[in-house]
Amino acid sequence: MNFGSDNQTGASQRVLEMLNTANAGVSHGYGDDSWSNQAVEAVKELFGCDLKAYFVATGTAANCLALSSMVNPWETILCHSHAHIFVDESTAPEHFTGGARMLGISQGEGKITPIHLDNYFRNVGMHLPHNPIAKVLSMTQTSEAGLVYGIDEIQQLCTSAKKHDLLVHMDGARFSNAIASLKCHPAEITWKAGVDVLCLGATKCGALCAEVVIFFNQDLARDFEHRRKRSGHLLSKGRLFGAQILGWLKDDHWLELATHANNQATKLTERLMAINDIRLAWPVEANELFIAMPTGLMEELLASGAEFYDWYPDVLPPGMTLNKDESFVRLVTSFATHDDELVNFCDRIEKYCNS
Amino acid sequence: MNFGSDNQTGASQRVLEMLNTANAGVSHGYGDDSWSNQAVEAVKELFGCDLKAYFVATGTAANCLALSSMVNPWETILCHSHAHIFVDESTAPEHFTGGARMLGISQGEGKITPIHLDNYFRNVGMHLPHNPIAKVLSMTQTSEAGLVYGIDEIQQLCTSAKKHDLLVHMDGARFSNAIASLKCHPAEITWKAGVDVLCLGATKCGALCAEVVIFFNQDLARDFEHRRKRSGHLLSKGRLFGAQILGWLKDDHWLELATHANNQATKLTERLMAINDIRLAWPVEANELFIAMPTGLMEELLASGAEFYDWYPDVLPPGMTLNKDESFVRLVTSFATHDDELVNFCDRIEKYCNS
Amino acid sequence: MNFGSDNQTGASQRVLEMLNTANAGVSHGYGDDSWSNQAVEAVKELFGCDLKAYFVATGTAANCLALSSMVNPWETILCHSHAHIFVDESTAPEHFTGGARMLGISQGEGKITPIHLDNYFRNVGMHLPHNPIAKVLSMTQTSEAGLVYGIDEIQQLCTSAKKHDLLVHMDGARFSNAIASLKCHPAEITWKAGVDVLCLGATKCGALCAEVVIFFNQDLARDFEHRRKRSGHLLSKGRLFGAQILGWLKDDHWLELATHANNQATKLTERLMAINDIRLAWPVEANELFIAMPTGLMEELLASGAEFYDWYPDVLPPGMTLNKDESFVRLVTSFATHDDELVNFCDRIEKYCNS
Amino acid sequence: MNFGSDNQTGASQRVLEMLNTANAGVSHGYGDDSWSNQAVEAVKELFGCDLKAYFVATGTAANCLALSSMVNPWETILCHSHAHIFVDESTAPEHFTGGARMLGISQGEGKITPIHLDNYFRNVGMHLPHNPIAKVLSMTQTSEAGLVYGIDEIQQLCTSAKKHDLLVHMDGARFSNAIASLKCHPAEITWKAGVDVLCLGATKCGALCAEVVIFFNQDLARDFEHRRKRSGHLLSKGRLFGAQILGWLKDDHWLELATHANNQATKLTERLMAINDIRLAWPVEANELFIAMPTGLMEELLASGAEFYDWYPDVLPPGMTLNKDESFVRLVTSFATHDDELVNFCDRIEKYCNS
Repeated sequence: MNFGSDNQTGASQRVLEMLNTANAGVSHGYGDDSWSNQAVEAVKELFGCDLKAYFVATGTAANCLALSSMVNPWETILCHSHAHIFVDESTAPEHFTGGARMLGISQGEGKITPIHLDNYFRNVGMHLPHNPIAKVLSMTQTSEAGLVYGIDEIQQLCTSAKKHDLLVHMDGARFSNAIASLKCHPAEITWKAGVDVLCLGATKCGALCAEVVIFFNQDLARDFEHRRKRSGHLLSKGRLFGAQILGWLKDDHWLELATHANNQATKLTERLMAINDIRLAWPVEANELFIAMPTGLMEELLASGAEFYDWYPDVLPPGMTLNKDESFVRLVTSFATHDDELVNFCDRIEKYCNS
Repeated sequence: MNFGSDNQTGASQRVLEMLNTANAGVSHGYGDDSWSNQAVEAVKELFGCDLKAYFVATGTAANCLALSSMVNPWETILCHSHAHIFVDESTAPEHFTGGARMLGISQGEGKITPIHLDNYFRNVGMHLPHNPIAKVLSMTQTSEAGLVYGIDEIQQLCTSAKKHDLLVHMDGARFSNAIASLKCHPAEITWKAGVDVLCLGATKCGALCAEVVIFFNQDLARDFEHRRKRSGHLLSKGRLFGAQILGWLKDDHWLELATHANNQATKLTERLMAINDIRLAWPVEANELFIAMPTGLMEELLASGAEFYDWYPDVLPPGMTLNKDESFVRLVTSFATHDDELVNFCDRIEKYCNS
Repeated sequence: MNFGSDNQTGASQRVLEMLNTANAGVSHGYGDDSWSNQAVEAVKELFGCDLKAYFVATGTAANCLALSSMVNPWETILCHSHAHIFVDESTAPEHFTGGARMLGISQGEGKITPIHLDNYFRNVGMHLPHNPIAKVLSMTQTSEAGLVYGIDEIQQLCTSAKKHDLLVHMDGARFSNAIASLKCHPAEITWKAGVDVLCLGATKCGALCAEVVIFFNQDLARDFEHRRKRSGHLLSKGRLFGAQILGWLKDDHWLELATHANNQATKLTERLMAINDIRLAWPVEANELFIAMPTGLMEELLASGAEFYDWYPDVLPPGMTLNKDESFVRLVTSFATHDDELVNFCDRIEKYCNS
Repeated sequence: MNFGSDNQTGASQRVLEMLNTANAGVSHGYGDDSWSNQAVEAVKELFGCDLKAYFVATGTAANCLALSSMVNPWETILCHSHAHIFVDESTAPEHFTGGARMLGISQGEGKITPIHLDNYFRNVGMHLPHNPIAKVLSMTQTSEAGLVYGIDEIQQLCTSAKKHDLLVHMDGARFSNAIASLKCHPAEITWKAGVDVLCLGATKCGALCAEVVIFFNQDLARDFEHRRKRSGHLLSKGRLFGAQILGWLKDDHWLELATHANNQATKLTERLMAINDIRLAWPVEANELFIAMPTGLMEELLASGAEFYDWYPDVLPPGMTLNKDESFVRLVTSFATHDDELVNFCDRIEKYCNS
């Protein structure tokens, strides 16, 4: 009964096999190997365009290296007030960018919108060199509330960003879950919609440690190799990444994994919504559920070995408040979530709530 | 008719004279001179306690060197959303602190309060090493809305800060105006109330370029001399600062200057409030007025050579909105503001509004 | 015929197997898992003392995170002028330390000695805050010339370092090769000799990507988790490291691998030294050979698919210069170097030189 | 008898008068005032070319802001091993540049030469992104040994620098003394010779605190105003700088001051060289003397109130060593050095040595 996070599983079997295969023999270090090169080609094919792609081991590194390529140290990065890079990555963005400003500009709502941007720019000072002027909009797909931005929403957001002279960064830690949900081509919610740089996460959906920083706006990649090296993120045995990404992308394996995770979330939602005393905070559009449940139930579940986290109260939707004996928790399904985990988990909840 | 800023005047005559006196003869460099030493003693006497005091040339340097002494790079500095260090100093705080996080946690209201702190801590994650945990509260006296925090308010704010394990920094760019307004002992709104570090600004109230970083919490000063040197803020001819501060503090000259500036603001307010079509945004408690005036009037005044700035709309108080043909401006009086400037300025406004 | 670098092989079979085993099932993220915990215990057992150990994916990250824990940004790190962290890691040390100074203080000789330290301190200014005073000595075991520091040498160097108030960092990218050479207990050349922090490299000797930052001086580890997180080096699936290190340390597998690499270097040396026109630059004490060979031979070997690098001329020993048609190259053997590679490589060289 | 440093005097009378004049009245802040604008024009006229010029209060800030405009954080700045920015400014260059590498490449000799550059580039690795490749040569005029680079020397050094793709920075803390010595046009040893950026120091030669960062290569100035602001070096009352520089440049006042300082050094040298037991370390070409004197004499002079510093032993010329009872000291003359100070000082020395 593990709903703690999609990073608590290992690699998928097929990713692991590719890694085992790639381990044999010698190859050049630092990403100059056939596995890495093939993986870059596979990324290009996936998005149907030319691009620059680089591999790193963590989402923090991917996002922050990307952002540091987009912003000067005297500029500002705008994001949702719940953005993972804003609240959960220490001050890594400041570290990598040499001290650019991080600013959350939306609250309450589950997604950032052009209205947030317009409001921000209506009030902010733009006098140089005094005001740290915004240069980048960072959005998260799937969002921190588990919501999926639709094609139109992304297009509108990117249009608004460009109007305000912002570059667009997408934190795609759960990008695959979004594609599994939207059932669209990856190009539609990235470069065709106006995204400049995507951090495509594989770790949460089947890899062991593999994230891809993808520059659709290739000019921005100019200094990337320097930045990756001096932050210690250039692996000597680069095939580790090449093999994972190849195995992950091959035959739409990634999409299969993401679809499974989403489907399990849907099933979980259906069961839970039928139970009194369980309240859903946000629509479930990918593989995360945010729910309010009786605190006694939460404690019983955790005591029985179930894994999940109580969650930041400010992720509650506007207008929703917790009752006195209620707790707010996040449930995450993954490519490895079994039906019997779901059933077992929901049975316990039903039993508690009906008793 | 200069109401642009209190940094558009030169030094006061007595400050300038002390500088001229100190210029003669030789003395050791880098602050190891009798003028600097006497000035440090004068600061101790002013606050009635032992302390560490250091001089720098700008408010940006003073505030940021102070903050960098109080926070680790993986921690957060909380402040009012309008705080000068947050919106008007580029990303200097990030630069000096090695990339700590700046976070504005209050909006609308003219002052930051314990309620803002409590709200913040109720929602924020405190999981290490993921969340960038808050370590410092920075407040501004006089505030960015021209308001003066009372003794009680500062005590309560510091008590709340300590409860949340925060150190307290005070940006005192207009500290002298606050003392002139409160008519209290400087100790009462600083170390006795719980302030750890004060940046005492002299530049806006009579000096040419002199700010004092005062550590009441002397442990925090441990690395200050390193930080000042490597950021290029250790002047070789240190007597420049020593002389200014001595001249400024001697015989309560600083208080005389601040009182004059405040009095002129009071007079200006009295005249303006009697005029229809002029609306005051915030009570005038020191030497700044924030007012809404007809846009046509604003343009006529500026065209006639009056100096003042239109101001950030988000500094409007909650509930106050501008009418269609109205503009929001800031007026600042200084130690050098003459009565005839006031009269002339108000006459023109009356004439416009009555015509 | 791969003598390019010991990072051009994959993982050893036993390391890979442990990784496959660990992949199954769920476990907590971010290093809070049984594999990681067991690996930390195995490291303690290896060194026979209490210590703090942390895992990262690259040697750059390991060394630079270690150094950033040992030095203030206004201090200096002393090292050999050929030190890998000084010449081959971009400006990563400056990045991680927030801008501390890197200084190479020895040249020519293959090892750094107390004499270099004494010379340095005899001439350097120690006036604060002007001079960036040295705080750390970083040494590399096995050295950049392929030499192994003996127990006595390390003791003397550490004693000298302490005399000058320096902490001691050891870059142990090829620490295992040094132990295989010295046949001593790992404690003898680390904490017992006075080393404060060791970066133990597994990647070059059998792991895929696993380095251990080991704090014998545990006070220095105080902020390590913050530093690792905000530099993006905290992996979510921490068992990746735990499994590798466990597999690597178990049953002295690491030592077996290192011994093989060293033995192959010895065999290679014996064959090559019997050949006219091949000149050895430094004694071969671990798994690296630095040799001068005819440029024509070098080109023929590379053309035939052999892998090795021409090397920085300043690594030549004092007094040794290249002849007109001679090139300077580095040959590295690894745990995977086969006898037939050696034989094949040497046969070609003999054939060329004897023709 | 003050020979401690040329920063132990105040401002010259004419500089101080201009400052007093400029203090009157109101003017815009942040360098947007007529004094600053006139000073920029005066700088252009001095060098006879178009350029960008910015004012700051300290040499550290001037040099480091200049360097940060010339180098990426993953690149290296080459300089003389005795360079002031390398040994006497803490780690300010690393701080301002975001962690670029500082590297001293010459030792022993009093000046850096093309031979040092050629040697450096002959041995250094140039593999990206591993090696931190050199991007800037920083030279000091007058040098740290008190030597003046001739027009030819600077031309040759700049030519060599360009050959190696280096930009050229000149630390001109004592630039005026060099011009007074060479009696050439300032253009000849700067932009006409190939210098990209000059930091022109006025503080050591008559100003109170005023340094000018001059970009002959104007492209490099692109981000300067951002860098100056976020490092706290943008003064609000900018006329402080404008007035000083205007007063300093007007009617060749600066050259008059520098010439006086140099002449006093010449006189001092002539007297001292006639005395047994006093040995000159370097030719005196500007306003600094480096001499070996009996330790007993040094102690007696200091005890009698004379001011000067004992100096870094590595500034001794190659081949010159101190005798057992000898000390190495630096004597500096300034625009304010009186004849009677010289006479008095030399009389005491003669008396000691002849007794």
